[in-house]
Amino acid sequence: MLPFSQFDRDGRLRHLITLDGLTSDQVRELLDRAQAFLRPTGETPARSRALDGVTVANIFTEPSTRTRSSFELAARRLGADVLNLEIQLSSRVKGETVLDTIYTLQSMAVDVFIVRDAEPGVGQFVAEHVHDHVSVLSAGEAHLSHPTQGLLDALTILQYKGGFRDLVVAVVGDVRHSRVARSAYQVFSALEVGELRLVAPDALMPDAGEMPGTKRFDSIEAGIAHADVVMMLRIQKERMADAAIPDPHDYHARWGLTKARLKLARPEAIVMHPGPMNREIEIASDVADGPHSVIRQQVTNGVAVRMAVLETVISNRRRRQDA
Amino acid sequence: MLPFSQFDRDGRLRHLITLDGLTSDQVRELLDRAQAFLRPTGETPARSRALDGVTVANIFTEPSTRTRSSFELAARRLGADVLNLEIQLSSRVKGETVLDTIYTLQSMAVDVFIVRDAEPGVGQFVAEHVHDHVSVLSAGEAHLSHPTQGLLDALTILQYKGGFRDLVVAVVGDVRHSRVARSAYQVFSALEVGELRLVAPDALMPDAGEMPGTKRFDSIEAGIAHADVVMMLRIQKERMADAAIPDPHDYHARWGLTKARLKLARPEAIVMHPGPMNREIEIASDVADGPHSVIRQQVTNGVAVRMAVLETVISNRRRRQDA
Amino acid sequence: MLPFSQFDRDGRLRHLITLDGLTSDQVRELLDRAQAFLRPTGETPARSRALDGVTVANIFTEPSTRTRSSFELAARRLGADVLNLEIQLSSRVKGETVLDTIYTLQSMAVDVFIVRDAEPGVGQFVAEHVHDHVSVLSAGEAHLSHPTQGLLDALTILQYKGGFRDLVVAVVGDVRHSRVARSAYQVFSALEVGELRLVAPDALMPDAGEMPGTKRFDSIEAGIAHADVVMMLRIQKERMADAAIPDPHDYHARWGLTKARLKLARPEAIVMHPGPMNREIEIASDVADGPHSVIRQQVTNGVAVRMAVLETVISNRRRRQDA
Repeated sequence: MLPFSQFDRDGRLRHLITLDGLTSDQVRELLDRAQAFLRPTGETPARSRALDGVTVANIFTEPSTRTRSSFELAARRLGADVLNLEIQLSSRVKGETVLDTIYTLQSMAVDVFIVRDAEPGVGQFVAEHVHDHVSVLSAGEAHLSHPTQGLLDALTILQYKGGFRDLVVAVVGDVRHSRVARSAYQVFSALEVGELRLVAPDALMPDAGEMPGTKRFDSIEAGIAHADVVMMLRIQKERMADAAIPDPHDYHARWGLTKARLKLARPEAIVMHPGPMNREIEIASDVADGPHSVIRQQVTNGVAVRMAVLETVISNRRRRQDA
Repeated sequence: MLPFSQFDRDGRLRHLITLDGLTSDQVRELLDRAQAFLRPTGETPARSRALDGVTVANIFTEPSTRTRSSFELAARRLGADVLNLEIQLSSRVKGETVLDTIYTLQSMAVDVFIVRDAEPGVGQFVAEHVHDHVSVLSAGEAHLSHPTQGLLDALTILQYKGGFRDLVVAVVGDVRHSRVARSAYQVFSALEVGELRLVAPDALMPDAGEMPGTKRFDSIEAGIAHADVVMMLRIQKERMADAAIPDPHDYHARWGLTKARLKLARPEAIVMHPGPMNREIEIASDVADGPHSVIRQQVTNGVAVRMAVLETVISNRRRRQDA
Repeated sequence: MLPFSQFDRDGRLRHLITLDGLTSDQVRELLDRAQAFLRPTGETPARSRALDGVTVANIFTEPSTRTRSSFELAARRLGADVLNLEIQLSSRVKGETVLDTIYTLQSMAVDVFIVRDAEPGVGQFVAEHVHDHVSVLSAGEAHLSHPTQGLLDALTILQYKGGFRDLVVAVVGDVRHSRVARSAYQVFSALEVGELRLVAPDALMPDAGEMPGTKRFDSIEAGIAHADVVMMLRIQKERMADAAIPDPHDYHARWGLTKARLKLARPEAIVMHPGPMNREIEIASDVADGPHSVIRQQVTNGVAVRMAVLETVISNRRRRQDA
């Protein structure tokens, strides 16, 4: 078997499991497509018939998440039929029944699988086994990958900063356990962000070899100084103990993004967060809702990016089928 | 901040959180619109493209309720995209995360939030914070309000009785804890129902100051005598104890609507119930299914009323945007 | 009241609760229609507007099953609105509230109820009470009936074998508790399958009087010898004890379909399974995925058969209404 590739034999995107290995051009083409799907607030969202006759299965482990809704709306606004399934695929890996579930849905003419799973490898495993005409999109894989999140983060920065090369971007918080940070690292590497900083307590910093080319900071004050972009990460309570931080209050005191700290960044810095936020823990409410925050724009961009990815893999499939 | 209003600056309906304060004209316009959506049994239900491109989020705390289905079908038959979300908003009020959930969905271009919640104030709280172009519709708020239920009750009475001013309407059962009764009170006040009676054991009667202008009865026999409309309410088992009623059997004996008791009402009286019914508790089965019952018509009217409200708030929004 | 019939007064199919009593012509017409809905793998699935304006309620007891998805896609590809409801109807039979649920949905203009229930009789009970224009389709009834499964099994055999009269079909496993086996028996009787064998341990064999005309085998080796079609059934762990089989491993050893055993069947035999499979229990993985397996085709046929049934009952309804 060939090593797994997200690209078809013509080098066009077929699956999106990771941003690792995408070129700057490939990323920029997706961002351009996504940008074209944006409309001013209050206007009817962009719609097309690009996914007419296409069936998308949203396989999630929880009944209602923001990411599930974002993918569902993206697919429907392109004209697809969407099947929402609450299945924990990884619990089925034993006995290969994960594949039986996928083969069953594929036999019902599901064309795109959107997969979120807490275990690593499920998305790729599925992608390696489906028919040629079927695509698999990750909606979050363990601590490893959340590619559409990385794309929406890049699109947001592009909108507010116009480019990437001269920027200082600080990723702050539990970088170690964050798929958001890993996908950000990958997309920012492709786009050659000027300076990428990892800002975290030692215990929440990735292993030494990971994410080469970044600068590491163990204080938020130093880490966000003169930054153009401050990306806050969600902290799980159970991770605080790893960093010997007794409670959320203490985490906020030491690592929370407050108005005072934000003054250390560039005056026109933007503040990002993948959501859902722990207000008054990793981020102060007046920062989350303040003039530097672009957090809601990230959500809007999320739908656009997912539309772009869906449209891309389906149009690439049609090219394969026409060839 | 201005005091909360359901109406936009031109006085047109934008949200529907309560029927309190609606004028007779406003109610009648909604009922007229609803009536226009009705079709004979077995015919294709009315459909339109009035909500094309509109996204409706149905936020419910239970997976499948009649009200959720009714709103979902109403929105879909008008061409909307519907997102079903099982979220308990009130449990999120802490830390303002209820607003984060709403802002997230709003950023995905959700135009209408349909909100049911067991805690008071959630609908208004959401309505006070969304964008100008977004509407919030209550699908049931604690014991306080269920405005589309009030409208469908009024529409049902209008269909069978032709008007409101000469009618005697008896609301029977646990009035104290009933949002159905409160919305009925509000709509019947706007429509100037001839005589509105509250019929309940003392312990299940609202406080003395509430619902002025009604007549109170502590026996069902006296309360429904010569009534044109008998609206039965659902009784929760745990409320019977409040009224010193030992069990459902005893509740039926003292407060259930039986065929014999119904003879005390006008010969052409109609019997209503918001559902789901406790058969042989608050209502005898032969009454529920008998010739006076209009309970199924209420359900049919529910879809029509919800279509009317959705169409109204979206057409009012378009007028604001065109102005 | 007349005895229950699935057919309308003109003898056309209105409900599908059981395959019992369907004629060969009726079955073949459904199979023909289903066949017309099939498309080559990777092509856009067949779609039509035959169910435009029709509302289908999918009433299931579990959030996500293959059968629910199959019916949902079938209905949507015909243009219907689909309401997914997680309700356990049988738990509501007390107090007739099953009917209240149905009447409520019917009053919202639901046209087709798709009902799966673990208790016998629910589908027919519902069918006996709905309006003339409403249809009820079983999606699995206790151990008794799974009519669309029977039809998809027949369609699969027809595709691979071209007919039924000269075939030896072996149904293997827990026949006693299987609705799949009962519907297969009924459809194969209508289609006059050459020889139908029941192959099961004594304790998992139906009572002596049931399924007349079949041949019974208490060893898999004898039962599948020279068979054209081997239909494996899913075994529940709790049923193994009934047959004094200590564990899944032992079940596989005695009753599992292995590559070695499959050699006893005809060289061109096909292997079927209704799914979900217990791999390495009733069926070896290399058989499930091997060249004789038509298991995925069964799933594909399932959508087509459900489209055929939906289209049939709705077109028959239109004929009744036009008459």
